[in-house]
Amino acid sequence: MKPGAKAAEGSTPIRAVDVITKKRDGQELSSAEIESFIAAYTRGEIPDYQVSAWLMAVVLRGMTRGETSALTNAMLHSGEVLDFTEFPVAKVDKHSTGGVGDKTSLVLAPLAAAAGVVVPMISGRGLGHTGGTLDKLESIPGFNVNLSTADFRRILKQCGCCMIGQTAEIAPADRKLYALRDVTATVESPYLICASIMSKKLAEGIDALVLDVKTGSGAFMKKEEDAAFLAELMVETGKRAGKKVVALITNMDQPLGINVGNSLEVIECIDVLRGGGPEDLKELCLELAGWMLYLGNISDSVEHGKTKSKGLLESGEALKKFREMVQLQGGDVRAIDDPSLLPRAKHTRPVSSLKNGFIGEIDCHAIGVASVVLGGGRAKKEDSVDPAVGIVLHRKLGDRVAPGEPLCTIHYNSEAQAEQATALLEKSFKITDAAPSKKPLVLRVIGNE
Amino acid sequence: MKPGAKAAEGSTPIRAVDVITKKRDGQELSSAEIESFIAAYTRGEIPDYQVSAWLMAVVLRGMTRGETSALTNAMLHSGEVLDFTEFPVAKVDKHSTGGVGDKTSLVLAPLAAAAGVVVPMISGRGLGHTGGTLDKLESIPGFNVNLSTADFRRILKQCGCCMIGQTAEIAPADRKLYALRDVTATVESPYLICASIMSKKLAEGIDALVLDVKTGSGAFMKKEEDAAFLAELMVETGKRAGKKVVALITNMDQPLGINVGNSLEVIECIDVLRGGGPEDLKELCLELAGWMLYLGNISDSVEHGKTKSKGLLESGEALKKFREMVQLQGGDVRAIDDPSLLPRAKHTRPVSSLKNGFIGEIDCHAIGVASVVLGGGRAKKEDSVDPAVGIVLHRKLGDRVAPGEPLCTIHYNSEAQAEQATALLEKSFKITDAAPSKKPLVLRVIGNE
Repeated sequence: MKPGAKAAEGSTPIRAVDVITKKRDGQELSSAEIESFIAAYTRGEIPDYQVSAWLMAVVLRGMTRGETSALTNAMLHSGEVLDFTEFPVAKVDKHSTGGVGDKTSLVLAPLAAAAGVVVPMISGRGLGHTGGTLDKLESIPGFNVNLSTADFRRILKQCGCCMIGQTAEIAPADRKLYALRDVTATVESPYLICASIMSKKLAEGIDALVLDVKTGSGAFMKKEEDAAFLAELMVETGKRAGKKVVALITNMDQPLGINVGNSLEVIECIDVLRGGGPEDLKELCLELAGWMLYLGNISDSVEHGKTKSKGLLESGEALKKFREMVQLQGGDVRAIDDPSLLPRAKHTRPVSSLKNGFIGEIDCHAIGVASVVLGGGRAKKEDSVDPAVGIVLHRKLGDRVAPGEPLCTIHYNSEAQAEQATALLEKSFKITDAAPSKKPLVLRVIGNE
Repeated sequence: MKPGAKAAEGSTPIRAVDVITKKRDGQELSSAEIESFIAAYTRGEIPDYQVSAWLMAVVLRGMTRGETSALTNAMLHSGEVLDFTEFPVAKVDKHSTGGVGDKTSLVLAPLAAAAGVVVPMISGRGLGHTGGTLDKLESIPGFNVNLSTADFRRILKQCGCCMIGQTAEIAPADRKLYALRDVTATVESPYLICASIMSKKLAEGIDALVLDVKTGSGAFMKKEEDAAFLAELMVETGKRAGKKVVALITNMDQPLGINVGNSLEVIECIDVLRGGGPEDLKELCLELAGWMLYLGNISDSVEHGKTKSKGLLESGEALKKFREMVQLQGGDVRAIDDPSLLPRAKHTRPVSSLKNGFIGEIDCHAIGVASVVLGGGRAKKEDSVDPAVGIVLHRKLGDRVAPGEPLCTIHYNSEAQAEQATALLEKSFKITDAAPSKKPLVLRVIGNE
């Protein structure tokens, strides 16, 4: 059923230029106007040049909560909305706004599924300086993220979690709008970002959603107040759609964990699923899992959810679930037991400190760019990624370092790329005389009332 | 020569999305950026959807004087720039932002030419509630406004004035941009309006320009401060291009003169050219002509220019020049001596007052719409106009009226149209107990320093 299209057929046809004028003049559009506008655009009845003028008016004039919610709904109903009410447990997902070394999805999907919720996760690819879940998963030989809705449903039934890419049927309006925003300087709007994310997440047929909104030098939103604004918008939009939603504002002033790069990050996730892994990564995974289990009615508090999750990592239950999912999605499970079977770069080289002191600041964005430069990410959408390359950090914020000691190691397949990445990485670590003050990983929780 | 295109070829290619981003963020674009952007758009290398996003950013963020000037130049140099330096006298034009019954161009072109300047006037058609000079001229049987540049030059040489429509060679960027603005709610921006008007006027090869910027109930700009803002922008842009420019802010709270409609307005202009006609129309023609002769170095003050112009109307010299121009442009000159040869509507009917009192207010916009309803104007660009229909006013602001006395007479060819126009016109006159205070016709002069 496509309520958006239905509404447009049933009601008086809107004139695109009137919708643009209203938004240009800062007036509030009705839900019916937004619904008709988006439905007509999706059907190809409104040309790109009218929609791009409207998008710019939205960027500069903003939207009310009601408009944001109506836009999200219109985009959601432009395509298929999955329905998993057949599963007797809660359907819960997690979504991150993107960061560097941000790999929690690979841990969380099997972890939450092992605890008893269903995780129907539809993820994206890396763009800009950030990595993408699908690219990471595809570094596992054979792993298939391009499944039909029927296969998605079957795997969810069998093991409780499945991780795929956006299908052509899910929110086609978002795909069309995103391509247009990308070339018209209308990406950076919290209202449009909210509608884009939430329309896809609400299409997953979930009951609850945990949002990880990143802020800091490696995030799209450098300022905490911008991250909080977007988080509030998404929480409100989700609640208006009848879902349980909570958003954690988390710190992205340095990469999460120590590995950046596709197969390198899979290796690190397997460590966490075995009960090991770096402290910060483990901490954030448990925090997010705690919320997923709490919102998914598995535990009666976030704390209990965290304790339960910790147990599932230590008992190997979460890893077992991950192996199950990898197998069902065509991946080579031997690579999970022996990560040396994952793609490995031909060469490594260290980047060493020239100074004595503490790691006072990390340009996290530059580290993301260094990974792209090595071939691990995409400069353009059409680019393919090299699963093997990346960066392993040996020092993080607050750590001591002496001259000649390695800051990080570059895993690379091309000398020229390694040169470029080295130049970037040498400038990414600021060595200071005193240790910086420690910032918490979770800065704020929004929607917890 | 097309300096715009040349500059774009010579310089580093710009990325359209960067130009949009800069304007979105309220930063000032360089002349080179604006030039390259417009030149590439005119060549079809930048798609409409990027330009419309940029236009909306301009509407909402505005432009500096330098940007407005650069945009005007870029649009000007997208096409042919006429050069009339071969004529030893000053080339002077007048441009109005549009009103109801605003017919001064038909008087001014022959009047200023009779005084000794050359008037290379390129005019437009009516759109919305306002009339257009070309539509009025075409009510003279045979009159041809579609001349080549060569014919335009030949006629200017022979009689000193010529009135034509925009050729395909003049400012093609403006034509392309205007069509896009029309459907993307980006018409109403003083910066874009200024660039559109001034790029076409500067292409006429003129030395001086007198602008008639209308304000009031029948103007596009209802508020005087908006009219003054646009006027200052156009004067500054013209001066930066090395031209003498002055703008008169004039009152449009009621139609100018008493006739509204194409052939009706031609008849009224012939009256003025014979030394007669309504006072307000005559006054504004002399005011504008005074400025044209002063800026065109024919008289040493505006007052002298007005006196000289008055003499040329009374002596019949201006009418003689008009007849000469009509003949050279293929028009039937017998219609000038006997206006009954001009198109006449089949029927007339009065609209009478129901009340006793003074004309306190006139909804001038509604009178313009009534003329469109009768077929005298265009609802859409593609519509053709009926030259014969229109409205003749019998009462203007401050006049006394008794019940049963006619407010105006409708000239019509269709009963249904007359019904609709009558309903509009009955509501257009507000009868008050006391006479309204009289507003001056010329509210302000800008650029006179």
